[in-house]
Amino acid sequence: MPDTRDTAQHESVQESLTRVVELLHKHELVESLVHKQDMPRHDLVQQLVHKQNLAELQKTLDALHPADMAYILEALPLDQRLLVWELARADRDGEILLEVSDAVRESLIASMDSDELRAAAEQLDTDEIADLAPDLPQEVIQDVFESLDKEEQAQLQSALSYPEGTVGALMDFDMVTIREDVSLEAVLIDLRKLGELPSHTDKLFVVDSKAKLRGVLPLKRLLLHNPDALVAAVMSDDPVIFNGNDKASDAASAFERYDLVTAPVVDVHHKLVGRLTVDEVMDFIRDEAESDVLAMAGLREEEDMFATVWKSMQNRWTWLAINLVTAFIASRVIGLFEGSIERIVALAALMPIVAGIGGNSGNQTTTMIVRGLALGQIHPSNMRKLFIKELGVSLMNGLIWGSMLGLLAYLLYRNAALGAVMTGAMALNLLLAAVMGVLIPLAMHKLGRDPAVGSSVMITAVTDSGGFFIFLGLATIFLM
Amino acid sequence: MPDTRDTAQHESVQESLTRVVELLHKHELVESLVHKQDMPRHDLVQQLVHKQNLAELQKTLDALHPADMAYILEALPLDQRLLVWELARADRDGEILLEVSDAVRESLIASMDSDELRAAAEQLDTDEIADLAPDLPQEVIQDVFESLDKEEQAQLQSALSYPEGTVGALMDFDMVTIREDVSLEAVLIDLRKLGELPSHTDKLFVVDSKAKLRGVLPLKRLLLHNPDALVAAVMSDDPVIFNGNDKASDAASAFERYDLVTAPVVDVHHKLVGRLTVDEVMDFIRDEAESDVLAMAGLREEEDMFATVWKSMQNRWTWLAINLVTAFIASRVIGLFEGSIERIVALAALMPIVAGIGGNSGNQTTTMIVRGLALGQIHPSNMRKLFIKELGVSLMNGLIWGSMLGLLAYLLYRNAALGAVMTGAMALNLLLAAVMGVLIPLAMHKLGRDPAVGSSVMITAVTDSGGFFIFLGLATIFLM
Repeated sequence: MPDTRDTAQHESVQESLTRVVELLHKHELVESLVHKQDMPRHDLVQQLVHKQNLAELQKTLDALHPADMAYILEALPLDQRLLVWELARADRDGEILLEVSDAVRESLIASMDSDELRAAAEQLDTDEIADLAPDLPQEVIQDVFESLDKEEQAQLQSALSYPEGTVGALMDFDMVTIREDVSLEAVLIDLRKLGELPSHTDKLFVVDSKAKLRGVLPLKRLLLHNPDALVAAVMSDDPVIFNGNDKASDAASAFERYDLVTAPVVDVHHKLVGRLTVDEVMDFIRDEAESDVLAMAGLREEEDMFATVWKSMQNRWTWLAINLVTAFIASRVIGLFEGSIERIVALAALMPIVAGIGGNSGNQTTTMIVRGLALGQIHPSNMRKLFIKELGVSLMNGLIWGSMLGLLAYLLYRNAALGAVMTGAMALNLLLAAVMGVLIPLAMHKLGRDPAVGSSVMITAVTDSGGFFIFLGLATIFLM
Repeated sequence: MPDTRDTAQHESVQESLTRVVELLHKHELVESLVHKQDMPRHDLVQQLVHKQNLAELQKTLDALHPADMAYILEALPLDQRLLVWELARADRDGEILLEVSDAVRESLIASMDSDELRAAAEQLDTDEIADLAPDLPQEVIQDVFESLDKEEQAQLQSALSYPEGTVGALMDFDMVTIREDVSLEAVLIDLRKLGELPSHTDKLFVVDSKAKLRGVLPLKRLLLHNPDALVAAVMSDDPVIFNGNDKASDAASAFERYDLVTAPVVDVHHKLVGRLTVDEVMDFIRDEAESDVLAMAGLREEEDMFATVWKSMQNRWTWLAINLVTAFIASRVIGLFEGSIERIVALAALMPIVAGIGGNSGNQTTTMIVRGLALGQIHPSNMRKLFIKELGVSLMNGLIWGSMLGLLAYLLYRNAALGAVMTGAMALNLLLAAVMGVLIPLAMHKLGRDPAVGSSVMITAVTDSGGFFIFLGLATIFLM
């Protein structure tokens, strides 16, 4: 696992994608010629061109970093993706599977038989096998498990025992451990004998005979201190330590806050069980951010851009169904006032404005609160101030925009009372939006649910139905 | 800059916050007692309690990591925040200012005079001064600049010359450079003389006499290879290199893809000008993700939770104004059909359903496309497949949900034609949502605008006005 790339290809992933797509098109062209001209498949010239194309494609693919291969596989429609996947060197299958998104991984694994999957898994470290495990058939995992040595089996079991979202599920086992009663010189000699260090190694872990963590020795100190010094004298004995059961999001915050590269992970008995690295943390942060964005649009999970229509519908239908129910309720609220609308049809044209602006303003409030909750910065002691501020913003917005819309309504329909109702309804619905915009995420948080998911749909439901009710209700009272 | 924390405080930031808030409350209680009981301010006992409280608060604050101080400052309302800020040790002001969010930094800087700002800036590295510079008064920057030595002045100018969003704006200057014609032994001796390495150092940069980058020497190789070997023989001569003008987002992808910890930054002449570290990249990724989430809710920028009502309104008004305009247009579309609504008032109750579901479905499509664009995975060659897939999903959803709603409309109003119009309108509006959900972000991308910002408001505007027009239009044609 080299930690520096040997070729400066980082600027050309998109170029690689373009090249692969071109070669695929050439390949498809030849294929379609073979079919269209109804030539015998064994026509030699055609077969040669065909083979050359595939060979060139394969060469291009083999030169790619596994992460770049993953990127290209994700960008290709299913048929081309499977062709490229077939050409990928089998000895990199495991690494590539680790890099692709969940949805794409599923499509690739579906195309492999048990032997291929077993071979792919066996190329990986135990913590990586644990990452793949949920997607592999039970019998493959069993076979892979049996092929491991005792220590690796224990590692795999340990990695699988931590639920998703914990530090234990993100950690790896690539640790270099040393004892505290040896000299730095001895450590250096041992390391040279070892000949290689795991990627991201910025510190060695100091453990006692029972594998309990005693401290860490940053490589920096190993380099800079007198080689005769003892590890115990040079090590840092109180570093940032995580427990396997710690929440991954808390660990991510700590990595950001304290600028960590690696950190030791211990169990409840303070025994060293693994190591957390900044690259895993960065992937975790990226995944979290993406799933928030997807959740806000009501996509259940990361979607393969080229999933089948059927799969996409499954991914999206829950949200649409919920939305349908809330829209239906709003529709029934309007239904209550059909008599009023019959008498003043302008109400039908104006009511969506009140509902829409309320939803917009409520979502702004909710976004602020969700962010504060995610950062843990909302506190019983500051809640009152937050609440008053949001109410203030809404009231001001309601009066300013409400007055403007009231004026517009008056100008359009020459009805001053209608204008006044419009202004009043806007102000009230924005207040409702502020109150619910604070309360909904707080309530979800209290109930132990992720406030980022669903808050938006709930606030919109409230401001829609509420907005229709307030506006049509006021109109019925004051205009009929 | 230690890269390991000396105390394992990472689990207790929230606890620190609680403690600080408690001490602040005690302090406020004493203050209010002094005022309420109208005691003379110099009453000795009171003053003593008061002083003790502040001393304890100060002790708590002094023990905190700058990042934790920043966290607490962000979570406090303005008056308490400024009290805590006043108590913060002046020699850490600079570091804390770097850590807080833009909005909170503004509120802190506003409370400081020029001397304090100058002192705070002078504690920082040149790349950090450059980060603060946009928020500092011109005269302070001038003074700070003059206090630097020649080399530092050049660094500051270099850092300030790169626009936001480039690698140059993220890089620092904490590099250790070596020559290629020396032995590893000599490098080790030099490093020990230096006595300290910059944080995150995982490699040394090998330059020639003209400061051109020749390669990098990973610390790992320095440790593991024979000390007699020459740097030139051991170094990696083709690492991932960035140009100061590269886009920061591309660099972030490369860091994620190749699991980098640091990377050299060069200018157009391949001269080493700085270094990019994973902690800066991680902050960049987090900031980008957050500003996407905020932008989707129409918040112009990160908002201080305790900003004044006036400031919050400024941050939020643009979006509300745009939304008002689009809602007004939708309202006028309905206005066109007032005659039809007068005759069948059920139309008023049913029309928001058609519009709402369209917006929902369109936003799901747009979110997928925006994500594909952000990853650079949308390509002329796969666009057609994407388009067909989205149309397929929409058509299926339109027929399924549309039929259900048509049936409901029929059951509610005992009008079969109305049910059919409902079904047709749903199907058509979902198709419109799919087409615009793909086209709007693509068009924004082509025009060089960020498709994450504004796509949602535009798609909702189209599906609202479009939904009303389709539904009321079909009703007018078939039901009147």
